[in-house]
Amino acid sequence: MKSFKRELTFIKNTRRSFTNITPEAETALADSGIREGLLLCNAMHITASVFINDDEAGLHRDFEAFLERLAPEKPHSQYAHNGYEDNADAHIKRQIMGREVVVAVTNGKLDLGPWEQIFYGEFDGMRPKRVLIKIIGE
Amino acid sequence: MKSFKRELTFIKNTRRSFTNITPEAETALADSGIREGLLLCNAMHITASVFINDDEAGLHRDFEAFLERLAPEKPHSQYAHNGYEDNADAHIKRQIMGREVVVAVTNGKLDLGPWEQIFYGEFDGMRPKRVLIKIIGE
Amino acid sequence: MKSFKRELTFIKNTRRSFTNITPEAETALADSGIREGLLLCNAMHITASVFINDDEAGLHRDFEAFLERLAPEKPHSQYAHNGYEDNADAHIKRQIMGREVVVAVTNGKLDLGPWEQIFYGEFDGMRPKRVLIKIIGE
Repeated sequence: MKSFKRELTFIKNTRRSFTNITPEAETALADSGIREGLLLCNAMHITASVFINDDEAGLHRDFEAFLERLAPEKPHSQYAHNGYEDNADAHIKRQIMGREVVVAVTNGKLDLGPWEQIFYGEFDGMRPKRVLIKIIGE
Repeated sequence: MKSFKRELTFIKNTRRSFTNITPEAETALADSGIREGLLLCNAMHITASVFINDDEAGLHRDFEAFLERLAPEKPHSQYAHNGYEDNADAHIKRQIMGREVVVAVTNGKLDLGPWEQIFYGEFDGMRPKRVLIKIIGE
Repeated sequence: MKSFKRELTFIKNTRRSFTNITPEAETALADSGIREGLLLCNAMHITASVFINDDEAGLHRDFEAFLERLAPEKPHSQYAHNGYEDNADAHIKRQIMGREVVVAVTNGKLDLGPWEQIFYGEFDGMRPKRVLIKIIGE
């Protein structure tokens, strides 16, 4: 069995954003030399998400509106977590969108459906944050 | 290490439905010959979900009502994604219910709790859509 | 390839609670002897969750309030599932928080970010319930 690990670092200049990281996952897989197995990709921070959905700007605005409706950022005082912090909403948003994806690796490729793209969802940006890619297989 | 892949195709005759696919996962595992490892089962489409919960019709009606309350299908015009599309709600519903499950394989069986059943959640049906099963182990 | 399995059992004395189970996952990993691979940790019951977030009591109160707003426990009669059962809300809450986490194993350690902690989320407690840990790798 082979294993491979890579960390990606992102500094986003807004509090919330969605970034397509499929190319980085594909590069990691190519560098790993693994042809059959599983790829795990997860946010290493608990106010961020890795998820798979569509690379379409309108949908991303819909996600933003949906998440703000369910767990609004402001007023900060509505959350018990927000004493020294102001990011309770980001912890909740990440919980809705999920921490991680596991993707099949087949014939040396990410085994994704036709529209599946991997995204980094940032909910408390403007500082360096990491994503982990771990691949096992052979 | 052994690996095994299978794709399932579903055409549901309503926009939304839940289908128990535990038997298909069990058959794939038996066909793989893998006795210890992990089984990944994921929707390959981004308006559908694979999740684990209870096989009980009342609960499925509760899921439907819950998802429609959080991300209603209509009016289609409420979503920025819906220009040529009308399925923004399906992308959001799938995000709530999740894309995938990872199930332990122990002694050649899916290592599920007493009531755990694997479901395909369709949120934009009436066309062929695929589910991926990938198993690694030995 | 090596594989390792452990079940944890919890009996919580309230209907809902969050329990940090990172130490139990670390102990299982140490006992497995696996140094590179993947660790799956999932609830075996469909009214409970395993998720990763912050070990902060204020945030846990925010999660509780958020989940009760989205899928209130009472009145029990609001849910189609609740005939002989009274726990439809718990099935829905678990769906929001997720069933499982998959964590990378690197150099014999859980490869977690600085604040990532693994939690057992109980939504229908006061009886014995199980969590599965499965580790594969070498």
